[in-house]
Parts: sequence; C-alpha cells; structure tokens
Amino acid sequence: MDTIIKSGVKQCPFIIKNSNKLVQNKQVFTENYSKCPVFKQVTRNFTLSCPVSSASTSLKPKESVKIEDSVSSKATKTFKYGQFMENELLKKRSENSYRYFNNINRIAKEFPMAHQNNLNEKVTVWCSNDYLSLSKHPQVIQKAKETLDIYGVGSGGTRNIAGHNMHCMYLENELAKLHKQEGALVFSSCFVANDAVISTLGKKYPNLVLFSDELNHASMIVGIKNSRCPKKIFKHNDMEDLERLLKETPLDQPKMILFESVYSMCGSVAPIKKIVELAKKYGAITFLDEVHAMGLYGPHGAGVAEHLDFQEHLKNGLAKDPEFKSTMEQIDLITGTLGKSFGSVGGYVAGSKVMVDYIRSFASGFIFTTTLPPAVMSAAEEAILITKRNISLRTQQQKVTNYLKTKLAKDLKIPMLKNPSHIIPVFIGDALLAKKASDILLNKHKIYVQAINFPTVAKGTERLRITPTPGHTFEHCDILINAIDDVFTELNISRLPNYESVTSMELFESGEGERLWSEEMMSLTNNDLHDNVFANQREFLESSSGY
Amino acid sequence: MDTIIKSGVKQCPFIIKNSNKLVQNKQVFTENYSKCPVFKQVTRNFTLSCPVSSASTSLKPKESVKIEDSVSSKATKTFKYGQFMENELLKKRSENSYRYFNNINRIAKEFPMAHQNNLNEKVTVWCSNDYLSLSKHPQVIQKAKETLDIYGVGSGGTRNIAGHNMHCMYLENELAKLHKQEGALVFSSCFVANDAVISTLGKKYPNLVLFSDELNHASMIVGIKNSRCPKKIFKHNDMEDLERLLKETPLDQPKMILFESVYSMCGSVAPIKKIVELAKKYGAITFLDEVHAMGLYGPHGAGVAEHLDFQEHLKNGLAKDPEFKSTMEQIDLITGTLGKSFGSVGGYVAGSKVMVDYIRSFASGFIFTTTLPPAVMSAAEEAILITKRNISLRTQQQKVTNYLKTKLAKDLKIPMLKNPSHIIPVFIGDALLAKKASDILLNKHKIYVQAINFPTVAKGTERLRITPTPGHTFEHCDILINAIDDVFTELNISRLPNYESVTSMELFESGEGERLWSEEMMSLTNNDLHDNVFANQREFLESSSGY
Repeated sequence: MDTIIKSGVKQCPFIIKNSNKLVQNKQVFTENYSKCPVFKQVTRNFTLSCPVSSASTSLKPKESVKIEDSVSSKATKTFKYGQFMENELLKKRSENSYRYFNNINRIAKEFPMAHQNNLNEKVTVWCSNDYLSLSKHPQVIQKAKETLDIYGVGSGGTRNIAGHNMHCMYLENELAKLHKQEGALVFSSCFVANDAVISTLGKKYPNLVLFSDELNHASMIVGIKNSRCPKKIFKHNDMEDLERLLKETPLDQPKMILFESVYSMCGSVAPIKKIVELAKKYGAITFLDEVHAMGLYGPHGAGVAEHLDFQEHLKNGLAKDPEFKSTMEQIDLITGTLGKSFGSVGGYVAGSKVMVDYIRSFASGFIFTTTLPPAVMSAAEEAILITKRNISLRTQQQKVTNYLKTKLAKDLKIPMLKNPSHIIPVFIGDALLAKKASDILLNKHKIYVQAINFPTVAKGTERLRITPTPGHTFEHCDILINAIDDVFTELNISRLPNYESVTSMELFESGEGERLWSEEMMSLTNNDLHDNVFANQREFLESSSGY
Repeated sequence: MDTIIKSGVKQCPFIIKNSNKLVQNKQVFTENYSKCPVFKQVTRNFTLSCPVSSASTSLKPKESVKIEDSVSSKATKTFKYGQFMENELLKKRSENSYRYFNNINRIAKEFPMAHQNNLNEKVTVWCSNDYLSLSKHPQVIQKAKETLDIYGVGSGGTRNIAGHNMHCMYLENELAKLHKQEGALVFSSCFVANDAVISTLGKKYPNLVLFSDELNHASMIVGIKNSRCPKKIFKHNDMEDLERLLKETPLDQPKMILFESVYSMCGSVAPIKKIVELAKKYGAITFLDEVHAMGLYGPHGAGVAEHLDFQEHLKNGLAKDPEFKSTMEQIDLITGTLGKSFGSVGGYVAGSKVMVDYIRSFASGFIFTTTLPPAVMSAAEEAILITKRNISLRTQQQKVTNYLKTKLAKDLKIPMLKNPSHIIPVFIGDALLAKKASDILLNKHKIYVQAINFPTVAKGTERLRITPTPGHTFEHCDILINAIDDVFTELNISRLPNYESVTSMELFESGEGERLWSEEMMSLTNNDLHDNVFANQREFLESSSGY
C-alpha cells in the first residue's frame, strides 16, 4: 500500500504540490484510491509489476481444470493460456451458449434444400438470410461464371493497389442509384462497413456523440466501441428517449444517430421519418443499417427508407424527383449487405459524394484489405438488377410470411414476437429448450431452423428465427407448421396466451396486425414499375475512384 | 474556471475529503488540472456543454471553404459535417496523399495483362498481390464454377446460422494441415482476422500486454488499438529491443508478441526463431502474420516459418515429425490470407484446437458476419492444393525476382530497399515524384506499378512496389527494366549510390546479398516433394464446428 501511495502521489498534480497530510492519511487512500483514475493506473501497474500480488489476482480462473496447457510455454511461472481458454469455454458450455455449427450445404437447383454431411441427407432450410433466394438464381450464377472466365477468381489487391476495377465501380454505381444517393463504397462485409464507417467518423469528427438504439447489431456496437466516442443508448425505437438524449447535447456538437430499419432478431422496424426529423432538429447525421431490409421493402427493394415514400418512388422509378426529397434521400449514411437478399457477399455504405470520398480516404477497414473477387461483385450487381425489376419477389416473400404468421398464431397459438416485417421470431426463452427444439426439427422433421442464443440475443430471450423466401412454397409452409406444432407438443413449450406472464416482449395474438406491405402494395406487379427501372444506368461515379 | 474547479473537486476522492485549501488555490489548478484525468474529463464535459466555449474550440476547421454543406441540416448553428470533411480532404490533397484509384481489370487468359476503361487499353500489371498468378489458374477457376453450379453464389448466413458448410470445413482443414496446427478458422479477410483475433484475445486474457513490431500492418495496429491493451512497440526486427521490453513485464503476466514474416512494403523478414525463443523465455504467445509469405516460402508454401526448417519439412512432407517440433509448430497463432498467393479472398487464423475454438466462440468479427461464398472457399482450397504440390511455382517466382533485382541494381543503379524476399521496393522518397513515376509507367509504357504513399508507408518513404510472379516472363522483365530506366531519367530521380545520403533505409548495392531461397532449394522440383503432399487429406476438424 505504501508503494501504491507513493507512486500515485508522484503522478497526481494536486497532491504532490500541496498536501503532505494527504499522503500520510492512509485511510483516505484505502477508501478512495480505486475511484481515482491516476491511482487506478498506479495500482494496476503495481499489481502487474509485482509477481506476488499478481499471482493472487482474482482475474485468474478460480477452478483449476486438469488439462494440458497446449498453448505456448509449459513453464510453471508463466500464464496458462490454454487453461484459461478451456475454463472460459467450459463456462460457456455450462450456460448453454456454446455453439455447435450445423453443416448446411444449400443446393442451388433444389432451393430451399440443403444436404448435410452425407449428400443424400437432405433438409429444408428455413433460417438462411438468402431472403429472395437469389444466391441460386440462374442469371446470378451465370454472371459469376462469365466473370470468372474472363477475370479469374481473386481481385489481386486492395482498391488502391491493383484491386480497383469496373466491377466495383459498376456495383457502387448501382447501389448509389438504388438508394438515390450520390455515391457508394463496397466493403468486405457489412460488419466491416459498419465498424469502419462508425469508428472512422467517430475518430475524425471533433467531439462526436453517438446515439445508438439499444438493439443495434454487434457490428455497430463494435464500431461504436472502437470509435471511443461518448455514446448514448436510447430505448429500442423510443423517440421520446432519443429526443431526451439529443437535448442534452449542444446543438453545434457533432452527433450521429445509429439505427437499423429492420431489427433482424425480432423483426421490429424503426420510425425512420421521426428519426430523420429529430436529426434535423438537433443537427445530427443519420446512420441507417438497412442490412435486413434490402431487397424486401420499397417498390425497388431499396429498403424501408424507400418503402416510406412508396408511391413517390413507384411513380418516379429510379429517377430523383426535383420537387420532392424523399426520406431515403435525407439519410446521411445507409449501410447494407450483398450477402443476404443480393445472394452474394460483401457490404457497402451509400451517401453523399463527399461522405463517400471521405470514408474512401480515411477508413482503414476499407483501405487495407483485398477487394472482393470480380465475380462476387458482378453477381451482386446482377442480383440487384433482378431485385429492383421484380417487385413480385417482394410480394411473394410477404405472402409466404403472412401465411406462416397467421397459421402459427391463429391455428397453433405459437408465440411469436410481434412485428410488421418478414422475420418470424418464434419465442422460446430458454437456451437449452431452443437448442432441443432446433435439434428435433432437424433430426426428426428434416427442417433446419437454427436456435438463436446469446450473444446474438439476450439470455432468456432465445428463439427460433424463421425466414421465409419466395423460394418456399405453401406446401413447404404446411410441413413447417406441422413440425413446429409437433416440437411444441413434444417439448411441452408454452403456447399463447400463456406466454404473456413470462415475457415483457410483445407477442402476436393473431399473426396479423400492422404490416409494412399494404394490400394495395401487394397487388402490384412488375408491369407497374417505371420504365427507367429497366434501363441501363451503368456508369463510373467519381466517388468510387477519387476526383 | 470556477465551474471547472467545482466540478472536478466533486469528482476527486482526495480533494473533496481533505483540503479546502486546494480548491481555493487557483494557481495550482491552472497549472495542473490538464494533467489530471479527472479534471481533463471535467474540462471536456464543460466545454461540450457550454456552447460559447465549444464554438471557440480549436478542433473546428480554421479555414472556411465556401462549399455547400451537402450533409444533413443546413441550420447555421449545427456542425458543418460536409465542410469539415471537404477541409480534411483538401489537406490530404495538399499533402499529395489523396488517392486516385486506377481502373485495373486483370484478364485471366492474358496474365499479367489488364485492361483499363477501354477493353483494348491494355497494361502489364506489376504490382498485384496475386503472387503465384493462381487467380487465373484454369483449375482454380474451374473449381469455382463447379461449386457455383451446385451451391449457388452466397453462403446465405453466418457460420452459426445456415452459413456453415463443408467448403469452410475442408478449407480450414487444409489450412491447419499446411501450417501443421490443430485447427484453423476462416474470416472475411485477414484484416478482419487480425483485428478480431488480437482485439478478442486482448479483451479476454487478463492484463495482456502486446509487443508489436513497429512496422506491423494496419490491420494488426487496428486490432491492438481495439484491444485497449497496453502495447510496447519494438524496433523493426530488433530482438534486443524486444527482449528489453519483455523483461519489463512480469513473467506470469499474459503477453503476446505480434509480428509479420515478410513485411510487405519493404520485404524485410522477421527473425522468427529468435522471437519464438524469446516468447518461451518470457512466457509470451506468438502471433505471426504470414499474409505476404503464404505460397512463397517453405517446400510447401506454408510461409517463412516453414522455410526455416526447410529440410525437415521437405523430408516429412505434410506429416508431423514426432521427434522434431518445427518452428512453425511452435507458433501459437498464424494468420494468413486467401486473397494473395491463393488467388481468392478471405483470411484465416491457424492454431491449437482450444485456441481456434476459443476464437470461434468469442470473436465478434467472426460470429456476426456472413460466411464467404462456397465457390470462393473451394477455389481457395484448390489453390492451396496447387500451391503445396508445386514447389516450381515458388522457385520460378524467385528466379523472376532475382533477375529483376540484379538487373535493376547492377545495370541501372536503381535504389531498392534491401531484403531477402520476393518484394522489390523501388525507393523514391517523395509522394508527388512517386505518383509521377507511376503515371509515366502507366501512360507511356503501359506498365502498372502503383505508387505507394501515406498511410500505407511513412511520408518521405514513398516507393514503387514491384511484385514479380511466375506468370511474368523474362521478356516482361526486360520491358519493365527499360521502362523504369526511362522514368528515372525523365524525372531525374537519384540513382545509387547517391541515395545513401538521403535515406537511412538500407539499399541494395548489387541486388544480391542474403536470400531466403538458397541455390540448393532453387534446384528442387515437384518430384522432390513427399508423397503425402499429393494425397487426399480431406476431413472435418472438430474445431471448425465445435466439439
């Protein structure tokens, strides 16, 4: 303790110059030093540099497991890396959050079927994020194959060094136009896009404060943490709470509001218009993750932001209306993925020309990584063309969703988290039970619906997450419905309305309620789309290369 | 100031309880408060919450540029995001580090040629990281196409949810066996692998200290920053400096030494054996990035760590020697890429079973992202098979490298950073001059060698980085040599030995000197490889799925 005090005093500009009494009063230190960051650091360094103290730290695993330390040195005095990790994994197993991955090989020509270890061991996949079943679309596959023949597999470099090509530029142009933004930038994934954009802007904008929905995706949370910015978490979709927090921050201080359009694990949808309104009022920029909405909402599949001004976008097609600035156009940063509805892999951000150029110039996660393969990007571009020209894909997806939701709720009283979107989260609320339910579906019914557990969802809110696609028939639906009924009976899982007492999360009572797609929208066909949707709009945007 | 003092005093556990004199002595505060973290935070909050103070902060751009603020609100009192970014970009332009990307479409059937905007506008690519020209290998392309036909484009989900399949498991098995490690894990990229592995272990191992080579890649630096661990930077490849730093940290405290085998921008090579020795002595684990060495060193292309025990690995093939634990096997974490020598995209980490399972279970950058497309992974697997079975690819790559290095140094006195590897860094030392040299090569000579500037290399060390491949002929080499000669003359760039006065970096005098590939190694053919290298070793490792 004496050593700690002396070290701390040496570093504290106030104590050293003023009061020897402070140094002498050990009780004050004992009570308070852990609250002071200077002393905390001193204590830490002291602990670290003192073998005896360090050996007794509570950070070490308490339970000794008799395993060989397979990592690094076997010397007794050094840290036991292997043992530490085994203990942490054991803890995870004991909490039923240890994950076993299922071997799922999705067969293009037999969508939604996949084979497991054995080629003949087939299952129906009901939980992939291939929302429009475009990963198996013959045109998308054909485009990838053609690109492979001409340009080979890998891009061969970063965007700056040999890895910049027409495939990324055409893709970025297509994405920018879909979102009616000035530019777009493709990343390895949307995890990377979210992390890179948030952390880069967070480090650059002076004193940026981040306002983040409490249910935001891990990639955004990682970006927020890596930005080191002060963050204010608002209650999920709660605009009063967001406004309360915005008010606390001076008008001229940079702010970013981060949210998703469709929250993938519960299917809830953000009040985008209201968020944009608040952003304007308080001088914030908006960061909208449309990952789980791309392809599925709006007349052209540009996401929920497009969906909000459905009629205007339908009327103008992909052209901007000089008289009307849509909600989508008012968003500063839209991120999305090429790996879900667009059936490929990769992520992107769309925004103004300067925003895209800025991220292009400063984001490490963009600069220092190999460009996606040309075939991956051209396949994604092809999938976007198909998506925007086929509203029928979206309406069919909704029909399958609505059919399932209604049958599961009305006929079988299966508890589902209430939402107006395409996600069907069957609530289980227990990690082991969810795993058992998933296992029975897989092994007995040959249906694959992965159990969703921590850290993807909070403990105690485990669920089965069903994702219908236009590639699922109503026959597939009926088989699934019967299988879920059987699993709920076999495992004696509570049905509606018994769940109300168990969870505060809102459940469907009827499988109906508010829906993003109205009856009127559902009746539209591809013939109702504007001619410009079918036109060739290929060009290179300056923000893709620099200007 | 009074407000700051009052706020700070309220938070300081020492001052509040002890000495009112301290509070009254303003001079002490004026002189010292900025040193104290408590007061620093108080000052910051105070500045943030005070509009007048905030408006005068020096963090705001000083030069007002008359551009329309294209981002977010136009209200005068709110932060000008667009203007701020424009100013930062202008600064970048003024420093000649603003980047224009060249449109380079590498043509598979005409390697190393690429076309630019116009299909007939062809250039020879001399700077891609497709080190073994495998991205255009017919078997690799064929494998990708076959996989596309059967399994479609995208994987459809994360590894946990519908995106785990035999393609990732076979690939991980191949990578683990190549490195003679127990397991491997594939990521979206090696940028993600490095960031995710370092930041995850950094957050998990209690009190981990990171020891990092000063020239480590941006992805490792990002991982180190995101880990929030204390870091100790050792001088590039300086083992005395590393040992000095290791000694400062208690033996039982977790430590990780982070380094690369081949440093990509200068081509220097780490003293791996010595680092492993120091790691054992001081109880550290080793993290080795083999990104720029994969495919190129060792009898089977497993990297420099394999190369160090060349004869032993050649003798045993891919089998482990129970009598001899090679340097490669002693490394705890090896990361690598599928996007360079393996001609595809993606990254990985290889290590012990528990290490891989641990990262699989805890790394956000692995958990929350879509699996690479099956075709991308099967193409990479095919490329690895070709790589390990063809030592001739490596020896040919070295022959082209040696030919270029010798001619450039001896005949033309071109300054190159001295190294024993496959990278040819032609030193320019000025951003604008490097850009001009690259532009003349491209426009006049139809040769593409990207100028490398900040932030990829330090300012004042700009260079042209040439990367020979076995796909380049000696005729290609002679054309390149003449072009570089011309550029150096046209731009009047200093030649050897004049550069010694300009840079402290060691330059080649003869283009020879130490080389990783000895004459004896260079004489080996594919027939000298062990039979087991050609055997089918496909299996699923438990660490890929959980066990």
